[in-house]
Amino acid sequence: MNSEETRFGMTKKRHAETFEKAVKEKKADEAFIPLCSFVAKTKNFFTSSCCSGRILLLELQKDEKKLGSNFHRKWHRQVKPEEAWNALQENTSGEIWFKMEPLILHLGTNNLENANIALGAMKRAGVKRGGIIVAKPGKFLFEIEGTQRISVPVKSNGKILLEKKFLDFLVKRANEKMKKNGKAIKRLEKEFRKALK
Amino acid sequence: MNSEETRFGMTKKRHAETFEKAVKEKKADEAFIPLCSFVAKTKNFFTSSCCSGRILLLELQKDEKKLGSNFHRKWHRQVKPEEAWNALQENTSGEIWFKMEPLILHLGTNNLENANIALGAMKRAGVKRGGIIVAKPGKFLFEIEGTQRISVPVKSNGKILLEKKFLDFLVKRANEKMKKNGKAIKRLEKEFRKALK
Repeated sequence: MNSEETRFGMTKKRHAETFEKAVKEKKADEAFIPLCSFVAKTKNFFTSSCCSGRILLLELQKDEKKLGSNFHRKWHRQVKPEEAWNALQENTSGEIWFKMEPLILHLGTNNLENANIALGAMKRAGVKRGGIIVAKPGKFLFEIEGTQRISVPVKSNGKILLEKKFLDFLVKRANEKMKKNGKAIKRLEKEFRKALK
Repeated sequence: MNSEETRFGMTKKRHAETFEKAVKEKKADEAFIPLCSFVAKTKNFFTSSCCSGRILLLELQKDEKKLGSNFHRKWHRQVKPEEAWNALQENTSGEIWFKMEPLILHLGTNNLENANIALGAMKRAGVKRGGIIVAKPGKFLFEIEGTQRISVPVKSNGKILLEKKFLDFLVKRANEKMKKNGKAIKRLEKEFRKALK
């Protein structure tokens, strides 16, 4: 083995251990466990982080950067309209945005050929956004992102901007998008099982 | 020159001609013209498409796919609240979403080394999303995407879901995000001018 292969092997092993630990401690994102477990068993790939999608009430500071912003609520599951509405009643500062964010997965591999194999599998799974974000000898890192999104300000300076009925509608749409996300993860797993060695 | 270099040269020339034609016919995205003009003059890079951000009223069909959906309105500029509100009053079918979409740029280059140079410049410009989406000998294609977004349903089955005041607020936020987009494009241009040969 050359030094690139050794380095890749060490990186892969480290990520596999982190993943196994997260599963044991019930900290892993459940919807992604079957896909990540499969990837951990391949020779040439590893996953470094994932999120199966989430519904947020994000408290943004004035400059709207996520850094310095708070998760007023963060759900990695479908939400009941009342949960969202009740959370909005609480005291908050800044501006609150209701967000549904899509699945995100970071996948690593050892060379450009395998990166292309993963890119092809992603496209066949119908997940449109994604690309190689790190390309170094022995280390290629991929970001895969779904496109299901909602992003809208719902409270500003302590004032709720919309009626409960409209928020209920947003929650309904967000829940539907969470379901679609779940299906996209299953399609990704299926294509990965066919293509990734 | 080997065949990969020849092929890259031809691709680059073709995209440069398409861009020049678009500028002459005033079809090019104005905010991106300085950046694209610079890239066209480099030896190793080309741009294949770009959008400097837009505000939409998107008419979604039942399955919510963009394919088969209509742009009820599409603005590549800041919008007056009345324009959005009046457009919502018109007869529509399906579901209307108010959207602010971020800048998007497709950049091509000839090899992995240059792709990494572009990736570095993008990161230094503070544009977070982006990666290599095509990686073939002689052809590397990049997608760069901003993160400024709004995406929310505002009309369903002919019924407007929100008050004018709330839509005004969304338009205000969308216009601010369009401004931020414009600044991000200028930062990208600055970093590209430093790094891309």
